[in-house]
Formats: sequence, structure tokens, C-alpha cells
Amino acid sequence: MVGRRKRRRRSARAGHPPREGSSFVTVRKVFQLDHYLKERAALVERALAQVIPEPAGSEARLLEAMRYSLLGGGKRLRPILALAACEAVGGAPQRAIGFACAVEMVHNYSLIHDDLPCMDNDDLRHGRPTNHRQYGEALATLSGDGLLTDAFKVLASSAGDGVPSAILLRTIADLAAAAGSSGMVGGQVIDLQSEGAPLSLDELKLLHAKKTGALFLTSIVGGARIGGGSEPQLVNLDQYGRALGLAFQVVDDLLDVEASTEQMGKRTGKDQAAGKATFPSLLGLDKSRQFAHQLERQAQEALGEFGANADPLRAIATFVVERKQ
Amino acid sequence: MVGRRKRRRRSARAGHPPREGSSFVTVRKVFQLDHYLKERAALVERALAQVIPEPAGSEARLLEAMRYSLLGGGKRLRPILALAACEAVGGAPQRAIGFACAVEMVHNYSLIHDDLPCMDNDDLRHGRPTNHRQYGEALATLSGDGLLTDAFKVLASSAGDGVPSAILLRTIADLAAAAGSSGMVGGQVIDLQSEGAPLSLDELKLLHAKKTGALFLTSIVGGARIGGGSEPQLVNLDQYGRALGLAFQVVDDLLDVEASTEQMGKRTGKDQAAGKATFPSLLGLDKSRQFAHQLERQAQEALGEFGANADPLRAIATFVVERKQ
Repeated sequence: MVGRRKRRRRSARAGHPPREGSSFVTVRKVFQLDHYLKERAALVERALAQVIPEPAGSEARLLEAMRYSLLGGGKRLRPILALAACEAVGGAPQRAIGFACAVEMVHNYSLIHDDLPCMDNDDLRHGRPTNHRQYGEALATLSGDGLLTDAFKVLASSAGDGVPSAILLRTIADLAAAAGSSGMVGGQVIDLQSEGAPLSLDELKLLHAKKTGALFLTSIVGGARIGGGSEPQLVNLDQYGRALGLAFQVVDDLLDVEASTEQMGKRTGKDQAAGKATFPSLLGLDKSRQFAHQLERQAQEALGEFGANADPLRAIATFVVERKQ
Repeated sequence: MVGRRKRRRRSARAGHPPREGSSFVTVRKVFQLDHYLKERAALVERALAQVIPEPAGSEARLLEAMRYSLLGGGKRLRPILALAACEAVGGAPQRAIGFACAVEMVHNYSLIHDDLPCMDNDDLRHGRPTNHRQYGEALATLSGDGLLTDAFKVLASSAGDGVPSAILLRTIADLAAAAGSSGMVGGQVIDLQSEGAPLSLDELKLLHAKKTGALFLTSIVGGARIGGGSEPQLVNLDQYGRALGLAFQVVDDLLDVEASTEQMGKRTGKDQAAGKATFPSLLGLDKSRQFAHQLERQAQEALGEFGANADPLRAIATFVVERKQ
């Protein structure tokens, strides 16, 4: 009884949905996670504002363009996951702040390059003109290049946060693998090639495991590694991360159908227009929604061995599936 | 006398120009350096062929495009300098092979992106169509992204070569700084902005210190750091690298005026056509040539404390200034 009560109290406090729902607990949960996400996003924003210098000198325009994208909004989900995973294994979140910044910089570079005319040709991102619409293609390409490269500088320089060199090296290698030709870049190539040549469900899963899943996964596992996580903990968080990353993408596909451009701050309905395979196009809306919930359960189960430290990760898994933008 | 004879013999053996020239020694020098560069380029090529997998699977086309540029020729000057600097401080060159590959990958990514239509819009590189002419803009952009990102994976994974983690971390941070917004990317932005708005000599030097100099410098200092170089040695090699990098660019500007497109394997005469400031446009041909020789002397002087191990670096400084392509 005590164990059960403790578990329930812990869940309500930090956002884990309790077994028996009540409207009171649901309201409380949403409020608490909202507060956590805001507080962590603010921590990340402050750190990000320091990694790119204030625009001045001969590169003023480049720095301005990099800051335009990096500081221009977004949920900061990947860096928050990095901090939350660090916490989940008992590490102080501040220890992973350099890594969190690096992950967000890599994410922002990928958005800038994906939006380019030669790629997805998007003109709206986070409710504002995309980088190349604002600064032109040359500067947008270079802003992406700068963010990607500087991310490794930030990460390699973060040994001062108390992270052992060997752990940091492994984290750099993993981030580069997640972002490079075998990860995110490879996924974007599959995505571009798949237009007009619809994929099977397995191919679609592979695409997303590379294009978006790999960076989610490395954010979580890297954050935990920096936090001093044990190998069994990293294995569990690897499972959590795989399920969460895929759930995120399934919901992204659903929102592309169901949400408005205003709500999302980016153009919606474009997958269908481009003839791209999506989870709704292959499974239908209902089964896609069910699949997302199934993935959330997998993510929650992977955290079974963790204590209250992992409550933020639990709450984020629910948030990722229930989000409306 | 013995010291002098020893110095002269050493110089003739490994390419350092002797104080008193003779046609015999000159011929011997050219032959020896030629052999050294070929042997080292082959070592680098073999290592590079292994860092990008053979094209297969869903990313076959991406890997093909990455290999097209990475294995498509070039002098391999930066990786050879990395190995030579490692040697100059007494390190086994094999120790720096991962770093040498990373440097060449970063160099190749920068060529692919600089050649893009939104940048310099070049269609010829190393005597072949540029990456985007061969594979299209989207894949060219992603090939560059892949090479840049994978470079950090290769470097961060090279601890197995016997390099201490802390040294490797410092090398990663330095490479990222040399390539990122404060280095190469920043230099490319200045270059793009300078078209039609000619620079002063100091501004031109700053542009090149960032755009090409920083990567030369980090290749040399990083190679030496990996080789176990002492701080005073790194300071001297820093001076060597700054002089060499600038000399390389002065000669590049001269060749853009004097050499043919066939000779260079890339379009020449384009600086003048674009109204760009160059050393010949600011100083004239003769003074530019004199400036290159002055920089070579500075580079040689910076090696004054080094023994025969630094002969390859000495010979390369001469080669950089005397090259015809």
C-alpha cells in the first residue's frame, strides 16, 4: 500500500499519469509539466544566447542569421530531454548544458538546410520566415554550416562542466553519428528520394529513425551518459528514446493532417501535397493515433526501473503524444 | 664544418633547400618531395576510402556523392601537413591519420558548399564537374553536411590510435573553431560580401586568415599536438602555419591570374571577373610574388629550432610557393 501511494504521489507531483485518472490530477499534471518545460526552456535559451556571440565585426550578418534561427523559438524538446535524462540517472542537469546546446544547434542547422529551396522549399518556420527567406540562400546555407560546426566546438569545450574527457569524446562521436550520413543526413536523403515513390511502413520507420529519431535518441542517451548513467540505465533509456522519437514523428504526421498552419507555425498539409508516405497515409488516422499511444506505453515501460528522477521523462512521453502543436 | 655538412646533407635528403643552390641539389630536392607527397597522399587516400562506406542500401546515392568529392583528387595538402607536423615533433604519423582524414573531410565539405549556385556557382573542381553539377543541389548540400559531420565522428573515434582523450578533445574544439563561424564559415561570408566592394590589404589578409588560413593552421598545430608536441613547439608551428597559409593564398591568387583552367582543374580568372580584391589586384604581380617568398622565409625561420624531423614541413613551404597548380 505504501509503495503504491508513494508511486501515485510521485506521479501526480511530476507529471506521470496515475493508473486511475481524475480531472483534478489531469489538470495538475498539465500545469506541472508546463512549468517544468518553461523553466527548462528558459535555462536552455539563456545558455544558447551565450554560445553565439552578439553580432559585431565582419561576421555580424552571419551571427545575426545564426541567432535568428537558434533563438527564434521552438519547443527545445531535444535539449530538455538531454537535461531530463541527465537528471534521470542522478546527474545535475547543469552538467549536460553544453551538450544540450550542441544538440539544439544541430537541430536548428538541420531545419535551416531542410527548408532551403533545393530541399523542402519552406517559407515558414516557428511562425516566421525561414532563414533563407530572411537572409538569402547563401547566408542560410552558411548559417546552418556555422551552427553545425560550432555545436562540436561547444560540446568539445564543455569538459569544464565536470564531464570526464572519455565520456565527452564518446558523446561527440555519438552525436556526429546521429547527425551525419548514417543518421539525420542519411534520413533526409531517403526523404527526398521518397517523394512520388511511396514507402512501405518499415521503410517509413527507417526513414524517421534516421531523420528525426537518431537525434532524439542521442539527446537522451548522451544526456544520461554525461550524468553518469550505468550501462543498464543507458540500455533502458535507449529503448525509451527509440519509442519516444518514433511517437514524436507519428504525432507530427497526424498534426500535419489535423492542425492548422497558424497552430503549428509552419506549413501543414504539405506531406499529402508532396505525395509523401506518412503514418496516416499508410495506417489511417485512428490506427496512427493508436500506434502513437502504444509507443508511449513502450516508452513508459522502459522507465520501469527508474525512480522519481525520471518523472520528467515520463511526463514528456505523455506530452509528446498528446501535444496539439 | 661537420655541423654545416650535416645540415646540408639532411637538407638535400629530405627536401630543405640548401644555402648554396646547385642544379644537382635542386633536381634531387624536387624528386624527393615529389616522392614524399605521393607516398603520403596515398596513405591519406587509403584511409579516406575507409571512412565513408562503399555505397549500398538506402543512402547509396549520398555515399556515392560524398565519395565523388572526397576521393576525387586534390593535393591532400592539409592532411599531409597534419602528418608532417606530427612527425616534426617526433610523433609517429600513423597516430594523426584520423585527424588527417577529418581535416580533409572538412576541406572537401567546404569546397562542395562554396561551389554551390548560391555561393560561387562553380562547375569545375579537380578537373571534373562540381558535386552539384553531378548530383544536383540537394544532394550536394547534404554531401557537404555529411562530410562535415562525419569528420567529427572520425576524429572523436580516433582515440584508439593512442591519442590521449584530453588532447583529442582540444583538437576537436580547435578544428571546430577553425571551420565554424569564427573561422572558415566566417571567412566565406566576408568573401561573399566583398564582391563589388573591394577590401583593403588588411581586410584581405583577415578574410584569408579565416577562409583558408584557419584550416591550414589547425591541421599543423593539431597534428603536432597529437604527436605530443611541447608548448614552445606548438608556438613555433603556429607561426609556421600562419605564414604558410597566407603564402598558399597569395600564390592561389597569382595562379588564378597566371595559370590556365586546364592546369588548375578549376575555373581560373574568376576573381577578376567577380571584381574581388586579390593580392595581385592590390599589390601587383611582382610584389605579390615577393610577398609569397617573404612569407616562405618566415615559415622556414619558424622551424629554426626543429631538427631533420621537420624537413618535410620545410620542403612543403617551398613547394607551396613554387607550385604551378
